[in-house]
Amino acid sequence: MQINHGGSREFHPEDTVVDISGVKTGGGQFQIIAGPCSVESREQICFIAGEVKKAGASILRGGAYKPRTSPYAFQGMREDGIKLLLEAKKETGLPIVTEVMDISHLQYFDDIDVVQVGARNMQNFELLKELGKINKPVLLKRGLSSTIEELLMSAEYLLAGGNNSVILCERGIRTFENATRNTLDLSAVPLIKSLSHLPVIVDPSHATGISVLVKPMSLAAAAAGADGLMIEVHDNPERALCDGAQSLTPGAFRDLAESVAKIRRALE
Amino acid sequence: MQINHGGSREFHPEDTVVDISGVKTGGGQFQIIAGPCSVESREQICFIAGEVKKAGASILRGGAYKPRTSPYAFQGMREDGIKLLLEAKKETGLPIVTEVMDISHLQYFDDIDVVQVGARNMQNFELLKELGKINKPVLLKRGLSSTIEELLMSAEYLLAGGNNSVILCERGIRTFENATRNTLDLSAVPLIKSLSHLPVIVDPSHATGISVLVKPMSLAAAAAGADGLMIEVHDNPERALCDGAQSLTPGAFRDLAESVAKIRRALE
Amino acid sequence: MQINHGGSREFHPEDTVVDISGVKTGGGQFQIIAGPCSVESREQICFIAGEVKKAGASILRGGAYKPRTSPYAFQGMREDGIKLLLEAKKETGLPIVTEVMDISHLQYFDDIDVVQVGARNMQNFELLKELGKINKPVLLKRGLSSTIEELLMSAEYLLAGGNNSVILCERGIRTFENATRNTLDLSAVPLIKSLSHLPVIVDPSHATGISVLVKPMSLAAAAAGADGLMIEVHDNPERALCDGAQSLTPGAFRDLAESVAKIRRALE
Amino acid sequence: MQINHGGSREFHPEDTVVDISGVKTGGGQFQIIAGPCSVESREQICFIAGEVKKAGASILRGGAYKPRTSPYAFQGMREDGIKLLLEAKKETGLPIVTEVMDISHLQYFDDIDVVQVGARNMQNFELLKELGKINKPVLLKRGLSSTIEELLMSAEYLLAGGNNSVILCERGIRTFENATRNTLDLSAVPLIKSLSHLPVIVDPSHATGISVLVKPMSLAAAAAGADGLMIEVHDNPERALCDGAQSLTPGAFRDLAESVAKIRRALE
Repeated sequence: MQINHGGSREFHPEDTVVDISGVKTGGGQFQIIAGPCSVESREQICFIAGEVKKAGASILRGGAYKPRTSPYAFQGMREDGIKLLLEAKKETGLPIVTEVMDISHLQYFDDIDVVQVGARNMQNFELLKELGKINKPVLLKRGLSSTIEELLMSAEYLLAGGNNSVILCERGIRTFENATRNTLDLSAVPLIKSLSHLPVIVDPSHATGISVLVKPMSLAAAAAGADGLMIEVHDNPERALCDGAQSLTPGAFRDLAESVAKIRRALE
Repeated sequence: MQINHGGSREFHPEDTVVDISGVKTGGGQFQIIAGPCSVESREQICFIAGEVKKAGASILRGGAYKPRTSPYAFQGMREDGIKLLLEAKKETGLPIVTEVMDISHLQYFDDIDVVQVGARNMQNFELLKELGKINKPVLLKRGLSSTIEELLMSAEYLLAGGNNSVILCERGIRTFENATRNTLDLSAVPLIKSLSHLPVIVDPSHATGISVLVKPMSLAAAAAGADGLMIEVHDNPERALCDGAQSLTPGAFRDLAESVAKIRRALE
Repeated sequence: MQINHGGSREFHPEDTVVDISGVKTGGGQFQIIAGPCSVESREQICFIAGEVKKAGASILRGGAYKPRTSPYAFQGMREDGIKLLLEAKKETGLPIVTEVMDISHLQYFDDIDVVQVGARNMQNFELLKELGKINKPVLLKRGLSSTIEELLMSAEYLLAGGNNSVILCERGIRTFENATRNTLDLSAVPLIKSLSHLPVIVDPSHATGISVLVKPMSLAAAAAGADGLMIEVHDNPERALCDGAQSLTPGAFRDLAESVAKIRRALE
Repeated sequence: MQINHGGSREFHPEDTVVDISGVKTGGGQFQIIAGPCSVESREQICFIAGEVKKAGASILRGGAYKPRTSPYAFQGMREDGIKLLLEAKKETGLPIVTEVMDISHLQYFDDIDVVQVGARNMQNFELLKELGKINKPVLLKRGLSSTIEELLMSAEYLLAGGNNSVILCERGIRTFENATRNTLDLSAVPLIKSLSHLPVIVDPSHATGISVLVKPMSLAAAAAGADGLMIEVHDNPERALCDGAQSLTPGAFRDLAESVAKIRRALE
């Protein structure tokens, strides 16, 4: 596989460091993004934001626009969710990452710090072209059945448009194994880092779909050289409107963050 | 798997017949869609349209907006391609199906007969919601790693919006086998037809990626009970700007159409 | 993919015809193998043998040695099963195909007409080497996650040993889709036939795991150019000791065989 | 998934510790198995054995019987390879693990310390039944497309026969991604350990097939809670008769072992 383009290490040997409103990711700087699958209320998002900040997260995640398999499932709070995320940002100072599902939503993202492209939109090329023109970091998640080469070529749509602040995210691929929600392809981390200068983070929550696997796979991701993690945290996982089975409590998240720090120090 | 929704056979036992500007698909009526991967020029699209019409196609396909893995590959003629498709329609009378990649393109689709949602957009839910509101048939292709249940739930986004003219298309899934471009999951045809009342067609060109496999898999699709086929035809496959390796010449397409007709008669 | 070996069409352009105790398979001669998943009793196997013979089968299948995921599941009647198969052969005159699981079983196969290598043993190379030395047709099933190239190379173990009576069998591969037991990769049939001179048959029973899909996929296999079918038939599928959900009744099998004959005639 | 059998944690909460001629694996005791893919000569195996011992390996691996896709590829030194392994054992004192491919080979394994069942034989149930009767540890590798449940059920064949000294090995599964040889399913480690009391090790050499990925994935495996590693080491990877592309030099292996030790200490 040869990727002789803007994202290639061959033409740009040093690591790209993405600046997320002052929080730097890549080039040896490791960040943990945490928060609920969906924004559900002002109380919920502000409470979780405070908890994950205390426990070691440096960026807040939360879904406002939600891609759901069924049209009859909860579709997210949408514009109202964006507003609540910005209130949580005001309260905690944490930068915000949230998913965009269509170009028309971008008008609401002015104060959002990182625009996430979800797995189902990794090859929504018209959306990628628009995001190549904005002046804001993009978190690009790998598609459920996308090859590493395709992920790098989707990043190329952003770079070719002039946006160099791109973070890649391995979040599990679809395989025959259904004991886990997806199969976390952790080898993708060192492989991508050998091919590309962009930072790579890992989302073990969506990859495994099982809360007890999130900590060991977070440790594994840190050991494999990832530049960060994206973790689902909910104050009451059993009542979460979405993805409760893979969410950690704030206490479990704190334990995870402390152990990840030990792994990071061991590798210094 | 239970799909207790608008598309379910349980609530709607009889087959849906989709009327494509007078060409009926489903409920025992079988149609062949044919044409080039991409519209390349007025001469090309009008010539191929005439050839496929003579050989037995009842609907013309041709890509104007092209989803390409790399931003550096040919991206399609876009709006100009739509205009050329409409000229081919005027010359031959064939209804037109072409792919939409973003809501903003829909303004150019007024005279297009069927809007195609490509495999990469099968879970572009915002696009599906918009297409649920239009008064025009939608051809929904199965995603590269989408389950049959997910395909049916994406169709449900269209039906829930009020658009009942939905045709499903099996076009191959991604597996470990790389001797073919994808793996044609032909069992999906009778399985979907047992669960849903919507017509199901098969695209053996994208599924196999190899021109000599297109005819046998077309015969197989007809034998398995498909309601139609979608076949890539090019007057000069070696010079096609896209997907030449899987395109048939007009002569090979005529041979395919004649053999498919024999299979259809054998099953009457 | 280049297979420049004994099985290659390049060196052996004409089709191999395998002679199964007088029943010829390949080179335009199409055969249906039918019978129960497991031999359960003398009455069962002899009754089903008679029924499938009347309905159009030319070879009887039945499992004596059964590969089962769990050691606590029914493991087959083993040597006693072989004896019962030979009684059914005596009663009906149908040649017998049954699976071998280990070299040490071969001593009981003297009067068996075709030795089957199951999917889980497709790369049991020591077993293949032994079967390369015997003077008896071998039915080699594709492994659950074996590529077409690997299947052809496993056949090469047999051919290299001197046994040219090899029939290949597509029986579904393992993919992310779990609405069917496996995914029937029917494109493998014309692809293998373009690369190899060996006959190729299809097992839609194991491929789909769902009895209502067996007939449409049998028709599809015949239309795609397969040289035969392998179908599970049980007089009382709900009480079958193994794989009842995919077994046809003798009546459904007769209907299938008649429809397959129509497809075959349509393609003459 | 419920595995209510001999291997289940429910009935046997404490970790099983497998004693390999005095080298204990499991229950917090971590071991590194290292050596070449194939035994090639006395000099080669003894030299590598000495090197990996100095660098931190506690068990020597080396293939005598080699499962090869093609019958025309090097098939291993077989019985002669076993003899050379035993010489390396005598020289270094390292216990030996090597693969058995057929029951008939077991007669040569008297002085071998661990019998390996390779991925292609994970469901060779007759072989498993025999190995359930011997008094020697078995290393059971996960099949290329085997689910975790199937791996645990294959282990059950050994346990049901009376052999409780079973070590499981994750070695990568087959997926659509072909940038790596297989996809290392590292989530399998904590998942299996939650379901079963048996030790679980990881083989990142076969999983990735790329030497530069072996170290990061070894660190990841240790961080995820694996009980050991199996690493291919060759003194001259470019000249290896088998799998050179994934083999480490002794120097690279030493570096790996030192870093793994740091990860292990960080998690104490």
